[in-house]
Amino acid sequence: MPARRPPRGGGKGRRPPGGSGGGRSSPPRSGGPKRPGSSGPPGLGGDQVEGRQAVREALLGPRSVREVLMAADMDPAPILDDIRDLAQEQRVAVREIKRSALEAQARSEAPQGVVAMVRPIQPVDLEVLATVDRPFLLVLDGLHDPQNLGAVLRTAEAAGVTGVVLPRHRSVRVTAAVTKTAAGAVEWLPMAVVAGVPTALADLKAKGVWVVGLDQDADQGFWDLSVANEPIALVLGSEGAGLARLTRERCDLVAALPLAGRLGSLNVSAAAAAACYEIARLRQG
Amino acid sequence: MPARRPPRGGGKGRRPPGGSGGGRSSPPRSGGPKRPGSSGPPGLGGDQVEGRQAVREALLGPRSVREVLMAADMDPAPILDDIRDLAQEQRVAVREIKRSALEAQARSEAPQGVVAMVRPIQPVDLEVLATVDRPFLLVLDGLHDPQNLGAVLRTAEAAGVTGVVLPRHRSVRVTAAVTKTAAGAVEWLPMAVVAGVPTALADLKAKGVWVVGLDQDADQGFWDLSVANEPIALVLGSEGAGLARLTRERCDLVAALPLAGRLGSLNVSAAAAAACYEIARLRQG
Repeated sequence: MPARRPPRGGGKGRRPPGGSGGGRSSPPRSGGPKRPGSSGPPGLGGDQVEGRQAVREALLGPRSVREVLMAADMDPAPILDDIRDLAQEQRVAVREIKRSALEAQARSEAPQGVVAMVRPIQPVDLEVLATVDRPFLLVLDGLHDPQNLGAVLRTAEAAGVTGVVLPRHRSVRVTAAVTKTAAGAVEWLPMAVVAGVPTALADLKAKGVWVVGLDQDADQGFWDLSVANEPIALVLGSEGAGLARLTRERCDLVAALPLAGRLGSLNVSAAAAAACYEIARLRQG
Repeated sequence: MPARRPPRGGGKGRRPPGGSGGGRSSPPRSGGPKRPGSSGPPGLGGDQVEGRQAVREALLGPRSVREVLMAADMDPAPILDDIRDLAQEQRVAVREIKRSALEAQARSEAPQGVVAMVRPIQPVDLEVLATVDRPFLLVLDGLHDPQNLGAVLRTAEAAGVTGVVLPRHRSVRVTAAVTKTAAGAVEWLPMAVVAGVPTALADLKAKGVWVVGLDQDADQGFWDLSVANEPIALVLGSEGAGLARLTRERCDLVAALPLAGRLGSLNVSAAAAAACYEIARLRQG
């Protein structure tokens, strides 16, 4: 679908959006960019952002962009002008390099001629996610495919998810391929990293959040979920395996999307889209 | 008013299925696999099926499978046993080859050690798609990315779509990457190929099908679509550009999924999932 919204050109002072929807916690106290292998708290990654939409959103979002690399041979395009304008406003260096050098630097398959070096994403505390107004959380228990994680994050941001929970282990991190597929969603979606999903779900329940698992093997259908208007956390399992046993046991209920055809399952990002938009529908008005 | 034109583009000898649901036409009379550049009627492709789920479904579905290739070094897995059993039942040769040979044969990125050679998919006539009981059609006007087409087909099959319409030109065909991502949906979803989408939409309207475009630039929201229970065709445009002007003009209405966050668009396969499942919800019961 076509992008419609014009970029918000305004200078943004690098603050978290503060208010509605995209609220982000304050930066970690330790300060300074995190490096792989540093002894600081484990980060989410996201320091290399690839693809045109993703880089534009990185420049619009609260994170600090260190540098933008662009292939020297690109045809003009409005989004490339946006990127140059936003970088100039924010005094971010734009370096034009040979396409071969850019591709060598890129970690995703199709960086579309644009790569940005960005301060790594700072996770927020689970508690922060749980205490926004009427939270709509998405818990991703062990996605392995960067395309899936990126696609789910993009859809979640559009559907009004207020925060994402990822496990520290056994999950893909926010790689360059994730940033590309997420098309900027990583800039706006607050994300928490937890040591264990079952414990995190118990914490959420203790804070009054309804925990709803999505799995084909379920107690009930997903439509007209009675708790959609409450604080809610939707939990998706990994590709193939679905919800892990301990994760499932912590769910208040497990619901399934109907399969009307011959195939036995949906791709996780399609299931996320159908489920997140169904919750969004029930929350409207 | 749209000019009425003969619905079927190239008159093709391939007859429509006639049968229920997933019915597929009888094998082409000409026989033999289609080659690129052959002078036969333009097919849909789909003759090389890759990936475990996709190959299992090809063996379960109505198309004739010529041969299954499997990498010799794979760990045991229930789905591989399924594939071997189904092939044996149907007297389809299973040839174990070196993984390097299999990867050389594969056209998609991750064939998961399994490739099947299958009779190409035979398109059905648009008229057949329009005359099933309460059609729920999906018109894909010019997708370019095989991952997107495969993902949309997989979701469509699960959501109860009864037929898919693809344009002959300016659209990705059913490549090996599409079969892989579709995970078997191409075996069960009847598909029509049309010379032009606007003309096809006019034909569908003449047969009493409501034509609903999905686009961010829209007259109304997508929820609670009043025509969901009627014969309906949901129309999606290409990645990036959205609905083409002529296509949009032929829609009875154009509806949008709400975007609650900062991003200006959804990926087309996420939009398809949310929209198809919303129509499925409205059609239930």
